[in-house]
Formats: sequence, structure tokens, C-alpha cells
Amino acid sequence: MVRKQIKNIPEPEIFTLDCPTQQVLDIVCSKWSVIVIYCLAFGTKRYNQLQGKIEGISQKMLTQTLRNLERNGLVERQVFPVVPPRVEYSLSALGETLVEPLCFLADWTDTHIEAVKSARDRYDTDNQTDG
Amino acid sequence: MVRKQIKNIPEPEIFTLDCPTQQVLDIVCSKWSVIVIYCLAFGTKRYNQLQGKIEGISQKMLTQTLRNLERNGLVERQVFPVVPPRVEYSLSALGETLVEPLCFLADWTDTHIEAVKSARDRYDTDNQTDG
Repeated sequence: MVRKQIKNIPEPEIFTLDCPTQQVLDIVCSKWSVIVIYCLAFGTKRYNQLQGKIEGISQKMLTQTLRNLERNGLVERQVFPVVPPRVEYSLSALGETLVEPLCFLADWTDTHIEAVKSARDRYDTDNQTDG
Repeated sequence: MVRKQIKNIPEPEIFTLDCPTQQVLDIVCSKWSVIVIYCLAFGTKRYNQLQGKIEGISQKMLTQTLRNLERNGLVERQVFPVVPPRVEYSLSALGETLVEPLCFLADWTDTHIEAVKSARDRYDTDNQTDG
């Protein structure tokens, strides 16, 4: 059965390592990248503001995530020559185009998170081992 | 500046570890999960068919990904009692609802992958070290 959304797309023979889908998923499909983009969608932030807003992200991971997003042209980093230096991060024009598809994913989450949780509880109950 | 898409959403104070967004991103935001869901969106597959279609995925990673998707209620696993046993994977009704938001992300990729690649090349040229 072919899904409604993709009925007009020929099924790819193979998902190669070179295909754009795999490449872009490497970029945007880290949990932290998505959260940082979503966070910056509300406006420019300093490093410490990001760190304060995103619970559970380590300094190393936040630095890596920002560098990766900057490298891929999604985030812009601006350094102000003051003492101490102030560094601000914002979405680039390209990064802004990613907000809408990510919002669809967030909408899906809001709608379906309870169903996912129930499925997980059922699975864990069915697969629990004694002792 | 608040983006068009989220102008009616209050900015979250903090993205906590418990918030649905972080939870669901743990599930769907692995590259391999997205590719497996996308692959199953075209129809039911046997394990070997999935492995043959997804370049670069190890047996261990495919097994883990499928188990994780099954646990979260997105994929259904059906075992046929034949010799040797045949195991088929399909999207659940819940998993099907995720195809559309993932297609938006795939559309974004098709449209913007070249811009991402150019940004990456520029970044790497600007940040290359000698020697």
C-alpha cells in the first residue's frame, strides 16, 4: 500500500550514502540541532542564553552544534568587539526556511506524543523479563 | 525578530529534558529512523529488503532502529511461521501520520541542499589551516 503523501513519487531503488536525504539528515537530524534552530527561531541569542534555555545540553555539545549549523549555513555568528567579547547567534536566511518544516514536526509531536508514550509502555510491559 | 511561522507561539522559557519536543526528537531524530520510516512509507518490507535499500546501515544499527521504532508504536513487525521464518515490517497507523511532516523535510532538502553545500564549502575554505 502506497501512502497518500508519496503516491506520486517513484520508490527509490536505494538510499545511497551520497543522496541528499542522507546528507541533510546528518545535518538537521540531530536532536540538539533541531532544538537550537527552534530556539533561535524566536530571535537572536547569546551563547549563555542558549545554554540557559536548553536543558541537558553540555557546553561541548552546544559548541559543536553551533559550529555545525554555522558550517552548513543555517546559523550566523556575530562577534562584537567589546570587553569581554559578546557573541550572538541568529538564524541565517537559509536557516529560517527550515523553521516551517520543523514546526510541522513539532505539531506532530504535540498531537501524537501520548500515543507514542502508550505504545512504549505496552511494549515495555510485553517485553519485560522477570527478575 | 520573530519568525512568521511561530509568531503566535509564546517563546518557551526553557527546553526541559521532559518536554515532548525533546522526547520525540530522541525518537524520530535519528537519521536512520527517518530513512527507515521513509522506506516503509512505500510499503511493507522484509528485513533483508530494508538492509538492501539503505546504504551504509549496519545490521546492528538496522536491528536497533527497527526495535526502537516498534517500541514507540511507529512500526509493526509481523512474523510468519514458515521455515525459515519470514519477518515483515510496516508502518503502523501512527507511523503513517509521521510520513507527511517527514516529507516536508525531504522537500526542504531537495530545495536547499545546494545552498547548504555551498555554505559548507565556503566555511571550510575560510577556516582551513595551513600545512
